[in-house]
Amino acid sequence: MKKNSKTEKQATRKAAAKIEKRNMVIAQSGGPSMVINQSLVGAVETAKRNKSIGKIYGAIHGIDGIIGENFVDMRKLSAKTLGEVAHTPSSALGSVRRKPTEEDCAKIFDVLRKLEVGYFFYIGGNDSAETVHIVNALAKANGMALKCFHIPKTIDNDLRQNDHTPGYGSAARFVALAFMGDNLDNLALGGVKINIVMGRHAGFLTAASALGRQHDDDGPHLIYLPERPFSMDTFAADVKKAMKKFGRCVVAVSEGVCDKDGTPIAAALSGGEKDSHGNVQLSGTGALGDLLASEIKSRLGIKRVRADTFGYLQRSFPEVASPVDSAEAYQAGAKAVDAATSGKFDSGSIAITRRPGSKYAADFACVPLKSVARETRSMPASHINRAGNDVTKAFVKYALPLVGDLPKMGRLI
Amino acid sequence: MKKNSKTEKQATRKAAAKIEKRNMVIAQSGGPSMVINQSLVGAVETAKRNKSIGKIYGAIHGIDGIIGENFVDMRKLSAKTLGEVAHTPSSALGSVRRKPTEEDCAKIFDVLRKLEVGYFFYIGGNDSAETVHIVNALAKANGMALKCFHIPKTIDNDLRQNDHTPGYGSAARFVALAFMGDNLDNLALGGVKINIVMGRHAGFLTAASALGRQHDDDGPHLIYLPERPFSMDTFAADVKKAMKKFGRCVVAVSEGVCDKDGTPIAAALSGGEKDSHGNVQLSGTGALGDLLASEIKSRLGIKRVRADTFGYLQRSFPEVASPVDSAEAYQAGAKAVDAATSGKFDSGSIAITRRPGSKYAADFACVPLKSVARETRSMPASHINRAGNDVTKAFVKYALPLVGDLPKMGRLI
Repeated sequence: MKKNSKTEKQATRKAAAKIEKRNMVIAQSGGPSMVINQSLVGAVETAKRNKSIGKIYGAIHGIDGIIGENFVDMRKLSAKTLGEVAHTPSSALGSVRRKPTEEDCAKIFDVLRKLEVGYFFYIGGNDSAETVHIVNALAKANGMALKCFHIPKTIDNDLRQNDHTPGYGSAARFVALAFMGDNLDNLALGGVKINIVMGRHAGFLTAASALGRQHDDDGPHLIYLPERPFSMDTFAADVKKAMKKFGRCVVAVSEGVCDKDGTPIAAALSGGEKDSHGNVQLSGTGALGDLLASEIKSRLGIKRVRADTFGYLQRSFPEVASPVDSAEAYQAGAKAVDAATSGKFDSGSIAITRRPGSKYAADFACVPLKSVARETRSMPASHINRAGNDVTKAFVKYALPLVGDLPKMGRLI
Repeated sequence: MKKNSKTEKQATRKAAAKIEKRNMVIAQSGGPSMVINQSLVGAVETAKRNKSIGKIYGAIHGIDGIIGENFVDMRKLSAKTLGEVAHTPSSALGSVRRKPTEEDCAKIFDVLRKLEVGYFFYIGGNDSAETVHIVNALAKANGMALKCFHIPKTIDNDLRQNDHTPGYGSAARFVALAFMGDNLDNLALGGVKINIVMGRHAGFLTAASALGRQHDDDGPHLIYLPERPFSMDTFAADVKKAMKKFGRCVVAVSEGVCDKDGTPIAAALSGGEKDSHGNVQLSGTGALGDLLASEIKSRLGIKRVRADTFGYLQRSFPEVASPVDSAEAYQAGAKAVDAATSGKFDSGSIAITRRPGSKYAADFACVPLKSVARETRSMPASHINRAGNDVTKAFVKYALPLVGDLPKMGRLI
């Protein structure tokens, strides 16, 4: 009897522990970034130390990996492997662009119930936050004890509630460095150089082209953002003026620039391919740059006009990540696990706020999912000049701490 | 009398010193690179310490700067400025693409005579070597005591007589890193990704896309070089095969790929703009990538097909320079000054050779101008696989020491 009683007690303890300890699923979604793996590793390393968390499932290719029960056992990964993954660009668990239907959610819940998962973490942008919001609402409606958290990531920097988002600082650093070098390339050989920068609706990344300016005549001399209507006539007139002033012209153009009716200039050229969130494909084509270059050639009669489209390098180039951005991305993952296990939140999204004061510092908050899902934010008017063809000092002050130290360029001419 | 005699002796000494000490002009030409300023600073710092050299004129925008007497006094630059310039991409003195006519040379000689210039150094590729060759031949024909030296630079790595050229290692490092990140981006989101890499006639830079492969299934899965005829049918068949094997496909394509008749695929799309050396403009347009992507989409019915054209970032991105390449570029500049003042050479080009042995080491030689001018070299057959859609291990062994250590990519899937 004594022995039985002991066994019973053990069983009770085990059962209690089982109820307390809940498994977690983490996944990545949307476009990769240079530091999205920092968030993954930040969450996993924090979860490994957390007594409320049991198994840690890494779902491969986002919700597809949950539905297909395609997982990586994240507890089995060595500290060395996790360290390498943290410093590696792109989404180490693979990604997906898929808005879950009710049917998808039913499948997801079947798997999560079977695996006794109590925590769901999803790293991504506004579309990914929408996915978490949908999963969370349906889970709650189904009476599931599932804590759903969104970990922010987007190079576009367009998540609401956030001062800025993990991924932006590193992509902005790439764009700033690219323009620093390209400005000197243009200084050496002259003419007009147009660079197309990523950014569907928000101009933050294109605006980062200004961060490396060190001399009064450094390019970009013109910056076009999706927040302001783009007119070919104004563009040509601006370039003509810059050519007169500088004898050359470097231009930054967001891939998302739209005409006065709100139609993306690039959309008509790309064939209008869309994903399941309704986003038109803008990247991975050089058509917009080529169109702008050919307009300038023919309208202004300038011979040397070149266009580059930075494309996917902006979000996946190794060794360019901003140290500040890397550290914050890691923290965002860690804070999500802390929030989920704190007992204070049933669901939420981690948001970065900026501490008031002259020295840059970031804080982290847990905000409602619906407040970041779906809709995005744009650059504030105070970041854009009146003519709508450059950024302001306020933008530079805002963005410069996020990209890390930029090298000094030696100039002789 | 005594005083006079002393003054006379001083005058004689001064005159002797004047005859012995000759001024130098240095300039940069052709496409910029990440380390062309290392060669400039290597030559200038070496010249500053050399007793045979008087004034050091930096001509702005190559031979245009000589003709227009547009110079930077390089002796006046501080060590700090020179250090900054050395680490800055692009041509700090500006560049030019101009083949000098006899009339140009007459103007150049007038200026050089007036400024008592005895040394002419020109940093650039095969076209720049041709310029030096022309200037040298005419100078000698005119009985001028002008020592003309070419300092090698080309990201294309296509200079004859050289094992490899300054500028290549850094551009190759950029391309290798870009593919390492982009391979993971493609692994995360799937589909076909086509990247267009610089390289007019030689595939060395496109081939560098292979240097960052770390796992058996890492991209690029296909590499197309200008050394082998490009066929749209073979390309589509290759992609189909790779999709079947890897479920995804990353492709590296040289901007200079030609059909079986030797017509560049990109030339028909770019409008055929040419410089005075007769080179067709291939870079600064996304047309080739977009054409290849649309062919794959329509022929294979694959939805997610993207193309990026790396463009000018390959030659001017800050902070990516290969340490080996930087050091060799500096040495090439220094060796040119040493050769010019050694008394052994009247003219020449500095060439990099590889020391035999298992450990990588470079040596420098002084070779005749005409042996590097104009014509270029291509990749050896031993560097290209039989199917003409990949590189060999021999290429990787050749190129890997030139790009410096590449970071390890952490992979989970």
